[in-house]
Amino acid sequence: MTQPIDFYFEFSSPYGYIATEIAEETEKRIGRPMTWRPMLLGPVFKITGQQPLVQVPMKSEYSKHDFVRSARKHGVPFYYPQKFPINTVAAVRAFYWTQDHDPEKARPLAKALYRTYFRDGRDISVIETLLEVARSVGIDADALSRALEDPALKERTKREVDASIAAGVFGSPYFIVDGEPFWGVDRMPMLEDWVKSGGW
Amino acid sequence: MTQPIDFYFEFSSPYGYIATEIAEETEKRIGRPMTWRPMLLGPVFKITGQQPLVQVPMKSEYSKHDFVRSARKHGVPFYYPQKFPINTVAAVRAFYWTQDHDPEKARPLAKALYRTYFRDGRDISVIETLLEVARSVGIDADALSRALEDPALKERTKREVDASIAAGVFGSPYFIVDGEPFWGVDRMPMLEDWVKSGGW
Repeated sequence: MTQPIDFYFEFSSPYGYIATEIAEETEKRIGRPMTWRPMLLGPVFKITGQQPLVQVPMKSEYSKHDFVRSARKHGVPFYYPQKFPINTVAAVRAFYWTQDHDPEKARPLAKALYRTYFRDGRDISVIETLLEVARSVGIDADALSRALEDPALKERTKREVDASIAAGVFGSPYFIVDGEPFWGVDRMPMLEDWVKSGGW
Repeated sequence: MTQPIDFYFEFSSPYGYIATEIAEETEKRIGRPMTWRPMLLGPVFKITGQQPLVQVPMKSEYSKHDFVRSARKHGVPFYYPQKFPINTVAAVRAFYWTQDHDPEKARPLAKALYRTYFRDGRDISVIETLLEVARSVGIDADALSRALEDPALKERTKREVDASIAAGVFGSPYFIVDGEPFWGVDRMPMLEDWVKSGGW
């Protein structure tokens, strides 16, 4: 039972943000490592025919209220960004490049990107902002800047996103443990029960 | 703080079924009564542009797995019905008629309808089946049978469904306590926390 838990998230997802803030505590409590796998919901919406929550009539108002309430429940500062959702492909590329070149910095980068977007309200789809965040966690931002234009990194990212879709990931956050999928930050207690009890 | 909690559900919703099986325990623990309010998701889907979960690519497989897993977690027998989803307008009418004429039987009717559909796999959109279920909980099925054709009951039901939509209800189960909405059987612990703590 030492296979890591796959932890998928989209950088434009408030629930994904909350999940990255609490996942490491979950990880410690259950004694199973997680592999962080940022992905993109854009290609998922093309398959499901759905839209971001905040663009769906009726669900929109509930979601905006629930983002704030859920964050507050977990003690996570959250401010609804003016520009939302945003395109996060560059953030995902930056994550996987960091994973490959400076792996210890990958989680700090993910958390800093989320905080920049959902605490500071700054648009992380802007490359200068993205690089500034990378620099703030000690990543070589010049090397990253060059890498972001590299077709190999684009291809590497595309493979990850395709793999997440092939694994059935349609939302954020989304966890897979021993083949068992859990969708949503509100399902993290269920994931924890599942792992601790060996399933039911 | 004695205002009842509004508890909305759709008879074709597996999560609504699970909620009716556990809501009375929640009610006892939190010491707040609930008003049961069956509604219809069909008109909601027209507004949101969405479809039943099991008709959405990617979400479909997850949902079918999760219905079973969630029911098992709560110790609720559940079998995926062959015909799903179904039109539940007659079930909703039967509920409100019972509410008005034999109110003590309304919750037993709701639970028996759900069990007939999700335990026994029988189609409760068939009027004969619906009446048989009503009779099994001690309701005057002949009177109900006549009432189901009555425009006044149709109108009464339509008003309830319209009111649920006006209240923002877009899913099942859905709870509103002191204006605070909670969507999903997996949010019932959050609702309970909210009521016990006075919110956060």
